[in-house]
Amino acid sequence: MIQTKKLYYGAAYYDEYLPYDRLQADMEMMKKAGINLIRIAESTWSTWEPEDGVFDFSHLHRMLHASKNAGIDVIVGTPTYAIPPWLARKYPDILADTHHGQERYGHRQNMDITHPGYLFHAQRIIRRLLKEVQQYPHVIGFQIDNETKPYDTCCPRVQQRFTQYLKKQYPDINDFNQEFGLNYWSNRVQDWADMPDVRGTINGSLAAEFEHFQRNLVTEFFCWQASIIREYLRPEQFITHNFDFSWRNYSYGYQPDVNQYDAAQHLDIAGSDIYHPSEDHLTGAEIAFGGDLTRSLKQNNYLILETQAQGNHGWLAYPGQLRLQAFSHLASGADCVEYWHWHSIHNAIESYWKGILSHNLKENATYRECMTIGADMKRLTNDLLHLKKHNKIAMLMSNRSNTAFRYFPAGSINDQNTIVRWLYDAFYRMNLEMDMISDTQADPARLADYDLIVLPSVYSMPKILTEHPQHM
Amino acid sequence: MIQTKKLYYGAAYYDEYLPYDRLQADMEMMKKAGINLIRIAESTWSTWEPEDGVFDFSHLHRMLHASKNAGIDVIVGTPTYAIPPWLARKYPDILADTHHGQERYGHRQNMDITHPGYLFHAQRIIRRLLKEVQQYPHVIGFQIDNETKPYDTCCPRVQQRFTQYLKKQYPDINDFNQEFGLNYWSNRVQDWADMPDVRGTINGSLAAEFEHFQRNLVTEFFCWQASIIREYLRPEQFITHNFDFSWRNYSYGYQPDVNQYDAAQHLDIAGSDIYHPSEDHLTGAEIAFGGDLTRSLKQNNYLILETQAQGNHGWLAYPGQLRLQAFSHLASGADCVEYWHWHSIHNAIESYWKGILSHNLKENATYRECMTIGADMKRLTNDLLHLKKHNKIAMLMSNRSNTAFRYFPAGSINDQNTIVRWLYDAFYRMNLEMDMISDTQADPARLADYDLIVLPSVYSMPKILTEHPQHM
Amino acid sequence: MIQTKKLYYGAAYYDEYLPYDRLQADMEMMKKAGINLIRIAESTWSTWEPEDGVFDFSHLHRMLHASKNAGIDVIVGTPTYAIPPWLARKYPDILADTHHGQERYGHRQNMDITHPGYLFHAQRIIRRLLKEVQQYPHVIGFQIDNETKPYDTCCPRVQQRFTQYLKKQYPDINDFNQEFGLNYWSNRVQDWADMPDVRGTINGSLAAEFEHFQRNLVTEFFCWQASIIREYLRPEQFITHNFDFSWRNYSYGYQPDVNQYDAAQHLDIAGSDIYHPSEDHLTGAEIAFGGDLTRSLKQNNYLILETQAQGNHGWLAYPGQLRLQAFSHLASGADCVEYWHWHSIHNAIESYWKGILSHNLKENATYRECMTIGADMKRLTNDLLHLKKHNKIAMLMSNRSNTAFRYFPAGSINDQNTIVRWLYDAFYRMNLEMDMISDTQADPARLADYDLIVLPSVYSMPKILTEHPQHM
Repeated sequence: MIQTKKLYYGAAYYDEYLPYDRLQADMEMMKKAGINLIRIAESTWSTWEPEDGVFDFSHLHRMLHASKNAGIDVIVGTPTYAIPPWLARKYPDILADTHHGQERYGHRQNMDITHPGYLFHAQRIIRRLLKEVQQYPHVIGFQIDNETKPYDTCCPRVQQRFTQYLKKQYPDINDFNQEFGLNYWSNRVQDWADMPDVRGTINGSLAAEFEHFQRNLVTEFFCWQASIIREYLRPEQFITHNFDFSWRNYSYGYQPDVNQYDAAQHLDIAGSDIYHPSEDHLTGAEIAFGGDLTRSLKQNNYLILETQAQGNHGWLAYPGQLRLQAFSHLASGADCVEYWHWHSIHNAIESYWKGILSHNLKENATYRECMTIGADMKRLTNDLLHLKKHNKIAMLMSNRSNTAFRYFPAGSINDQNTIVRWLYDAFYRMNLEMDMISDTQADPARLADYDLIVLPSVYSMPKILTEHPQHM
Repeated sequence: MIQTKKLYYGAAYYDEYLPYDRLQADMEMMKKAGINLIRIAESTWSTWEPEDGVFDFSHLHRMLHASKNAGIDVIVGTPTYAIPPWLARKYPDILADTHHGQERYGHRQNMDITHPGYLFHAQRIIRRLLKEVQQYPHVIGFQIDNETKPYDTCCPRVQQRFTQYLKKQYPDINDFNQEFGLNYWSNRVQDWADMPDVRGTINGSLAAEFEHFQRNLVTEFFCWQASIIREYLRPEQFITHNFDFSWRNYSYGYQPDVNQYDAAQHLDIAGSDIYHPSEDHLTGAEIAFGGDLTRSLKQNNYLILETQAQGNHGWLAYPGQLRLQAFSHLASGADCVEYWHWHSIHNAIESYWKGILSHNLKENATYRECMTIGADMKRLTNDLLHLKKHNKIAMLMSNRSNTAFRYFPAGSINDQNTIVRWLYDAFYRMNLEMDMISDTQADPARLADYDLIVLPSVYSMPKILTEHPQHM
Repeated sequence: MIQTKKLYYGAAYYDEYLPYDRLQADMEMMKKAGINLIRIAESTWSTWEPEDGVFDFSHLHRMLHASKNAGIDVIVGTPTYAIPPWLARKYPDILADTHHGQERYGHRQNMDITHPGYLFHAQRIIRRLLKEVQQYPHVIGFQIDNETKPYDTCCPRVQQRFTQYLKKQYPDINDFNQEFGLNYWSNRVQDWADMPDVRGTINGSLAAEFEHFQRNLVTEFFCWQASIIREYLRPEQFITHNFDFSWRNYSYGYQPDVNQYDAAQHLDIAGSDIYHPSEDHLTGAEIAFGGDLTRSLKQNNYLILETQAQGNHGWLAYPGQLRLQAFSHLASGADCVEYWHWHSIHNAIESYWKGILSHNLKENATYRECMTIGADMKRLTNDLLHLKKHNKIAMLMSNRSNTAFRYFPAGSINDQNTIVRWLYDAFYRMNLEMDMISDTQADPARLADYDLIVLPSVYSMPKILTEHPQHM
C-alpha cells in the first residue's frame, strides 16, 4: 500500500486566480515557511480548456516549473468539479435536475455526474492534463475531483436507471410492492413502466433507497476516474480525494450523500477537508472526529488536503491555534496538513475565506506561525510519520440510518449526525479514541476485534450484523 | 331519515397494508374488545385495480368474509382519494395544477377532482367495488372518498369554468368590473377572453370568489359520487363522509376549502374525523367543537369515522383518556366512535401515527382500555343511541369570512377560525352548548329559534340576514 | 429651471375607483380644506383603454372639468406602471422574467419595461392621454409612471443586451475575465456566445454589474417617456416623478434598484413618495432623510407627490401629527405636500391603506386637521415657497455599494442602507443637515464645496474620487 515518503506541510495554490504575477515571490515565501507541497489544478477547467477542444496549460506549467525549482512537491487535482460555460451551453441538460428543479450555471458541483456529455468531456480534459504533468518528477499524486457528491441528480435518465436497479433486486414486482409497503395510499406499482417520479414519494423507504442509489453513483464515479488516472500513474504516485463532512450549525458529522468507505476503495490514500470553528468554539473534537473517520476509511494514514488557515466567518485564530490544529491532525494519523489556501482570493464568493496570506499578500501573523510549524514538522518527520492507532472501541457508521432520520425524525432531531456527535464527543471528553466502521463493510469477524461497538441510533442494519448479536 | 340501528364502536382496517396474515387473529381480538364495526377500502385503489382495467378484490372479500363471520359490520369507502400510478401516467395533467404549480405523484389528495379522466376511472372503480360488496348483508353503509377538498385545482380548464360562472352571474361585464372594483391598478377586464390567471390577482374579493367556486366543485363532487352509489344502495344502507377540520397549531376550526353544510346535503348521515392533542393539551373543547359542528350539518346524529387511538406527535394517552374521549363523542350526539386505526402501519409517512395496536400487534394498555369501552357501549346502547340536543345558542359559520381573513388579516390573525375558537371555547368553559349554522343555509326564521346568535367576526354575510337585523 | 408658482397642498384622486358618484361633493370638501392640487390618471390604463385601441376618457374629463371649476390644479400621471389584462394576454412574455421566474398578471410594476410590445402600447396611451388633457389650462405638470424600477427583468433579450454592454466595455474578452476574476471555479468565458444566465453567478462583481445595467434601463425608460411628453408640453408645464425608497423594517434608505440621480436628469422637478411610521415610531428622521435626498437629486426644491394621511399598519396619527409632517416637508425644501390619497379604496390590496377620508367618505378628525394645514399653507405661501439650503455636510450615496452589501454582508448587515441610516440619524439628532451626492455625479470640485463628506461604508468608488483624496 502506497504511503507518503515524508510528512507534508502544504497549501492549495492558484496561479490562475491571482491578479498579479506573484509566482516567484510565493515560492520563496513558501520555502521559508517550510511548505513542501502544493495542490493545484482542481478547480479551473475553463482555464485549461477555455473553448471546446482548445487547451492552454501555460499556468499549469508555470506552477510546475516554479515548484520544481523551489523543491516543493505537487498534488494535481482533476478539474471536473466545476464545468466551463461552453460545456453548459453545449448540453442544456448537463446541470443536475434535482428535487428543487434544474440547477443554473454558475455554482460549482451542480452538474449531473452521470451525463454522457459530461463524462466524455471530463475524460478528455483529465487525459490531457495527465499527459501534461507526466514529465514532472515532483508530482507525487492526484486528487480525484473535489468533495464529490451526487448533487441530487434526479433527471429522468437517472430515475430510469433507478428503476432498472430496483428491477434487478426484485425480479418479481410483487416483492417490490410488499417490501416497500406500496399498497399504502394506492402507491402500488404493477408495471415498472408506471414508476412515478421518486421526488413525490411519501414512502421514506423508497426515498432512502433512491439516496442509496445516488451514493452508488458517486462510488461509480470514483471508480471511473481512478481507472483513467491509473493508465498514467507512475508506480510511486498515488490517487487520493478530499472527502468532506456534513455540516449542521457548527457541528459536522458523516456525509449522508456519499458512502466514503465504498468510494475510498478506489483510492490509494484517503484524504479529507477538515474545517471547524476557531477561538472559543474550537473544541478539538472536530479534528479528532474527522481524523478518526478518515483514518478508518482505509484503516491507514491519510492526508488533510484542506484545512483552514485564517478561515472564514470573521473568526481569528488565537496565537498558537494553528500549531495546535496541525499537530492534532498528525496525532490522529495524518501524514499531511495542507491549508486551503495560500493566498486569499480577490473575486467571487470565497473572497473572505482567507488563506495564509491576506489580500495584500504580505507576511502576517498567520504566516509567521506557519514558519514555526513547517520547521517543526521537518525536524520531527521521522518521529511522526505513519503514526498508527490500535483502538478497542468502534462506532458503526450508517448512511442509511443517517438519511432515515430525515424521513422519521426523533422529535426535533432530523439528522443522525447529531446523535453521532453526542456520542463521539462524550468519548472524546473521556479521552477515548475510536475507529469508525461502515455498516456496508462491517462483518462479525472484524467487529469481534473491538471491546465496544457504539451504535448511534442505527435505524437500519445489515442482516449479517443482526444475526450475530453477540458481537454487538 | 336513515340512522344507525345501534351504537357502533369501530376501527379502520387495512388487510392489504399488513406485512403478515393477521386477519383471523385481528377479528378475534376485535370481538373481544367489543368492536362491532370496521371501515375498509377507502385508500387502496391500486390494490383493487393494479393495472388499468385489471381488478383484484381478493383482500376485499377476505375482509368481508372474516368480518361477517365475526359479526362485525362494515362501512365501505370509495377508494378515490389516492390514485394509482398508472392513472397518473395515463393523464399527465391529472394531478392538480395549484397556486404553487403542478403536484407530483406520490401524495394522496392532490389530483384534479374535475379532470374527465379522473372522473371516468373513478366512476368505473366505484361501480366495480359496489358490485363486489352487494352480496354482503353486513355492509351497513358507504363512505364517499376521504376528507375531500378541491386541492386548490387552478388549471386552465377549471379557470375557464370559473369565467363561465362569473359570466352567468354578471351578464354585463361592466357589472363584474364595478362589483369587484377592477379599475384599481388597471385590472379592468372588458372581454371575458382577457380574464387573467386568477392566481396572480391582488383583488381579495376575486380571490375569495374563486375559493367559493372551488368549494362548489367539492359539493358537485359529492353530488356526483352519491348519485352513483345510490344506484346500488339497499334501502337500509346509508351514505356518509368523514369531514375533517382546518388545523392551526393545536387548535382546529372550520374547514375553509369545503362548505361542509352544502356537501352534506348529499349524505344520509354526517360523519367526521376528530383528532386532537392528548394528555395535558386535551381540553375537551376539540371534541365538543367537532361534535357540535358535525351534528349541525344535518341537524341530526352523526358518526365519528376516525379519531385517534394511540395517536401521533409522541403523545401518550393517560389511563382512562380513551374512555373520556369516547363518551364525550357520544354526549355530543355521535352514534359511532371509530378509531383510525386498528393496527399501526409498517411503512411510509404515517408509520408513527399509531392505531389501537402497536407495530408488534399485541394486546397493550390501549387495547385493554378499548375492551372496557366496547363493553360499556354495548351495555348502554339503548340509553345512548340517537341522543338529541335542543340548544338555544347558535354560531354563524361562514366560509367566505374565513377565507377573507387571509386577504385582510386583523393584525396577526389571518384566519377567522382563531376567533371562532376564542368564542366557542369561552362558551364551552361556561358549559354552554351551541348549534352551528352555515351562512349559506341560514334564514331569519331558523335563526329566530335561538336566544343568541354568535357572530365570530363575520366579514361578509348574505343579504337576507342583514335585512332582518332584529334576529341578529 | 421650472418651479411651482405657489405652495401646493394636494391629494391623489381616483374618480374611476369610487363605487359612488362623489365628484362634486369631493371637490367641495377639498376646496374647504384648502386643497389646491390633485394627482390623477397614473394607475388606470385599463380604464382609459379597456380594449386594445378602444379609448374611453370619460372619467378623466369628469375629473378635469370638476377640478377646473373648483379652482384645483392637476398633475397628470402617465398610466404605464400597471398594464391592462388584454396587453398581458397579447404578449405572454410582457411580464418580467426575474431571478424567481416569470411574474403572473395581477400585480402592478412587474412588466418588462424594455419589452417592445409594452413600449409600443405605452407610447400610444401616453400620446392619447396627453392630447386629451392639452385643452386644460390647470394641468400644471406630468408625472412619469409611478415609483419605477427595473422589476428585476432578466429575460434572454435583456441578458443579451447586457452581454453587448459588457462587450463594449471590454472589447478584449480576456480583459473581461481578468477584471471579474472569472478563472475562479471555472467561470471563464472565452466566447461571448457562452455567457451563462447571470442569475446563476457566484461572482458578486458580475451580479452587481448586472444590477448597474438594470438601473440604466430605468434611466433609459425615463429618458424615453420624457422625450414623448415634451412633444406635448406647454412652456410652463413640468415633468416630475415620484421616487420612493428602499424599506427595511420601519427604516428606509436609498433605493438600490434605481439611480435616482441619473433618472432625475430627465425631469424638471424632482418628486418623492415619503411614507413613515406614525405615533411613537415617527422620529422625523424619515421625513428629513427623504427630503434631503430628493432635494439633492436636482439640487433644488421638490414635490412630495405621495405621503400618508391616515396611513396603514393600523397606526393612527396623534392630533397635530399631520401638521408636523406637512411643515417638516416644507422645511426640507418641498414646494408641495400631496397625500396618498383623498378617499380610502373599497376594493383590493390597499383597502386599508387609508386616505384623508375613511370608507364612509365623511368629515373626520384627519380631514379637520387638513383644513388647518391647508389654510396655513395658503397664508404662508410667500414665506415658505422655494426655501433653499446651503449645507456644509454631504453624504456620498452609492448604488454599487448598496448592492455590494448583499453579496458581501458585514456580519448580519446585508444592506448598506442600515449604515446610511445609522450615520444620517446621528447627524439628524445633532440637528445637522446634509446634502446627498451620488458617486456617479460626484466630482472633486463639487465635493470641495463641503466641510465634511460622509462615506457610509462606501464599498466601491469612482476612480476620480480616490485620486483626489484631499477632498475626501
